[in-house]
Amino acid sequence: MKLSARNVIRGKVIEVTKGQTTAHVRLEIANGTIVTASITNEAVDELALKVGQNAYAVVKASDVMIAVDD
Amino acid sequence: MKLSARNVIRGKVIEVTKGQTTAHVRLEIANGTIVTASITNEAVDELALKVGQNAYAVVKASDVMIAVDD
Amino acid sequence: MKLSARNVIRGKVIEVTKGQTTAHVRLEIANGTIVTASITNEAVDELALKVGQNAYAVVKASDVMIAVDD
Amino acid sequence: MKLSARNVIRGKVIEVTKGQTTAHVRLEIANGTIVTASITNEAVDELALKVGQNAYAVVKASDVMIAVDD
Amino acid sequence: MKLSARNVIRGKVIEVTKGQTTAHVRLEIANGTIVTASITNEAVDELALKVGQNAYAVVKASDVMIAVDD
Amino acid sequence: MKLSARNVIRGKVIEVTKGQTTAHVRLEIANGTIVTASITNEAVDELALKVGQNAYAVVKASDVMIAVDD
Repeated sequence: MKLSARNVIRGKVIEVTKGQTTAHVRLEIANGTIVTASITNEAVDELALKVGQNAYAVVKASDVMIAVDD
Repeated sequence: MKLSARNVIRGKVIEVTKGQTTAHVRLEIANGTIVTASITNEAVDELALKVGQNAYAVVKASDVMIAVDD
Repeated sequence: MKLSARNVIRGKVIEVTKGQTTAHVRLEIANGTIVTASITNEAVDELALKVGQNAYAVVKASDVMIAVDD
Repeated sequence: MKLSARNVIRGKVIEVTKGQTTAHVRLEIANGTIVTASITNEAVDELALKVGQNAYAVVKASDVMIAVDD
Repeated sequence: MKLSARNVIRGKVIEVTKGQTTAHVRLEIANGTIVTASITNEAVDELALKVGQNAYAVVKASDVMIAVDD
Repeated sequence: MKLSARNVIRGKVIEVTKGQTTAHVRLEIANGTIVTASITNEAVDELALKVGQNAYAVVKASDVMIAVDD
């Protein structure tokens, strides 16, 4: 499947925390930067996400803001 | 200003393309990965975004999806 | 690529309208319902979206609201 | 109330799962496709969402991505 | 139609700017604060949005971030 | 940090409710209007959000819809 989302960043899963319905997944991308995703528990199960595996953070361009230092 | 958004990734602006109302800004983050943001022209002007300057890509955790290879 | 997004709905592209930076793509899903997506022109080009082809509307669960009749 | 959101898809509630703050609501839309929404518990209570009732999935066009088969 | 979105803020339209596909609509809410919405041209036409009329800014709770002063 | 997000609305925190992973934060903005944000528990802790303090609701323009009365 090819996706219109402009941002697909490769990383490694370093943490998976499930709540009652919503999970937080943390990915370390290449430069030590951590990306946090809030997804459904169901998606965690379906993708069988586990610490240590490779995965991608996927973000639609319209969900990215830009900031600059003052 | 401290922000609740979990993802603030430092990079360098490599492209700014304005449309009639919406602009696309591309940031190169540390590992050669490009992040594309779709923001208002107005924000581009207000932040005075220019190719070559440092900036941050900011994304709320609930806007990040996770993907894995099949 | 397997994606965490809970909603992947199959349809047929019935309209592609490009603006200067942002395009609108309309998909007819099985029951005659039309889904409209606002994506980058770049994504339209990269996916080579054309009227008549099959495609999927993909939506993260946290971007879906629910409404009921009064 | 008339809404700017381009996507309002009619369906029937088939599942409501509340977590501590966030609920998942599943709608079956006409062609057997299931749509999952992640909304607040509060919204579930206010709309009095129940399995079997009619409801709509509402999505802003800028939150819809497009995918195609490889 | 009753909507799950937690935030429905009443205001007055003070500006409507259409691009080729995407429009920016500005609402003044009660305390002089301006809210900017980026919506499709099509929605502007369908709602017949005009400067001076009453309207509501509608935002899903999961799209609201919180910031505090440093 | 200056942010591209068009909407930064000042208010006072009137409620903070943590779930297992996701928290709801309510802000009263100047005209008695309440804004609800769904953010990570982690952000609540990092910003040390407490009832009674000043804070801002921050929303990207592309996440704002417009509604009008029928």
